[in-house]
Amino acid sequence: MLTQLAIRDDVVKNQLIPSPAVQRLSLYLRRLEELARDGVGKISSRDLAAYLHLTAAQVRKDLAYFGQFGRSGVGYRVEPLIEELRHILGTDRTWTVVVVGAGDLGRALLRYRGFGSKGFEIVGAFDTSAEKVGQKFGSVTVRHTDELDEVLRTHDVKLGVIAVPTEAAQQIADKLCQGGVKGILNFAPTTLQTPPDVTVGPVDLAATLEQLSFRVSSGSVRSP
Amino acid sequence: MLTQLAIRDDVVKNQLIPSPAVQRLSLYLRRLEELARDGVGKISSRDLAAYLHLTAAQVRKDLAYFGQFGRSGVGYRVEPLIEELRHILGTDRTWTVVVVGAGDLGRALLRYRGFGSKGFEIVGAFDTSAEKVGQKFGSVTVRHTDELDEVLRTHDVKLGVIAVPTEAAQQIADKLCQGGVKGILNFAPTTLQTPPDVTVGPVDLAATLEQLSFRVSSGSVRSP
Repeated sequence: MLTQLAIRDDVVKNQLIPSPAVQRLSLYLRRLEELARDGVGKISSRDLAAYLHLTAAQVRKDLAYFGQFGRSGVGYRVEPLIEELRHILGTDRTWTVVVVGAGDLGRALLRYRGFGSKGFEIVGAFDTSAEKVGQKFGSVTVRHTDELDEVLRTHDVKLGVIAVPTEAAQQIADKLCQGGVKGILNFAPTTLQTPPDVTVGPVDLAATLEQLSFRVSSGSVRSP
Repeated sequence: MLTQLAIRDDVVKNQLIPSPAVQRLSLYLRRLEELARDGVGKISSRDLAAYLHLTAAQVRKDLAYFGQFGRSGVGYRVEPLIEELRHILGTDRTWTVVVVGAGDLGRALLRYRGFGSKGFEIVGAFDTSAEKVGQKFGSVTVRHTDELDEVLRTHDVKLGVIAVPTEAAQQIADKLCQGGVKGILNFAPTTLQTPPDVTVGPVDLAATLEQLSFRVSSGSVRSP
């Protein structure tokens, strides 16, 4: 048996975890899920690191923030580590999510099949365009944005995705916050003003390309 | 006049800059661009920080990696700082970019108007579907993926975006690398194997939601 200590919730709550380490947890999880699909039962920190172009020490250090998951010379058991990572990331529960904006990007998100298996259930999609309201993308039928308040109320929605044009983004953010949403993924290239208890994850596509351009021009090697 | 030292290229080359600091440069740049559009000429580190929910000390520290841009008690001149940040990020030159995959996500990228103004010119879009080849999205007409090699050769393309299904992603990555691409933005939820001189920026939409779920469940306050 591998030693598995309880998740150090105290550490997590105290926000001592560097954000890049949390980002790498998602990478570890993704790779472990691939390994599980391929029937692999165990993996060393060295092999897990190699897949992701990291050092074994980095992998061990990242996971050590949350407890002790492997045993020296034995490595990690894939399935239990997947369960632990999902627990740490909060995706061992189902999050209800709304997507506001059914343009190209909104539709891409609605049709993206990866969310369901990762604990995210899209319970509503919204747009103001008469053309889009009533259309079905993925498993979700687009409703008019006027119905957003009601869906937030009835579904206890905690996460929202903003994929509307920049000029509408703040208004949608206000509606989401008023409706009890605590986390917003914002694809509109603007800074949102939100209450202090709401987490905003900005996804700026141009900024993502800028980061890549920085790394390529400065000769840095690949991202973690 | 504000004191402006030369960009410390040595520091950049030596990769001493933490990745979150580089990510914040994009946020600073975006906010400064908004200020410039509003006709604002100067801003203090405190005000710039406040817009982004950071501390003034953080802003000063991030910028200090690259030189000295402001003057104590005077703040930053907006336009020159924009120019410097673009130089640091490498977006004061034009990058030619190809987008492979013209599904919902690929089309969202092709139609996204923010790239051009930020130094990214999409010179080619590719798909294997006969339905999509020949269609125009944004200013780009989709070509068959068979033509990718030729476009990479003739346009000296350094950045590529992969927006194809997972099973096709590695093959496209190989083609891009063979064609001289040095930076890949990968939207396919899989780890790509690439030569050491190629930077891969993975954009995993489910992982992005996981990061948000982590922050919301652990009670961390908003992201930088």
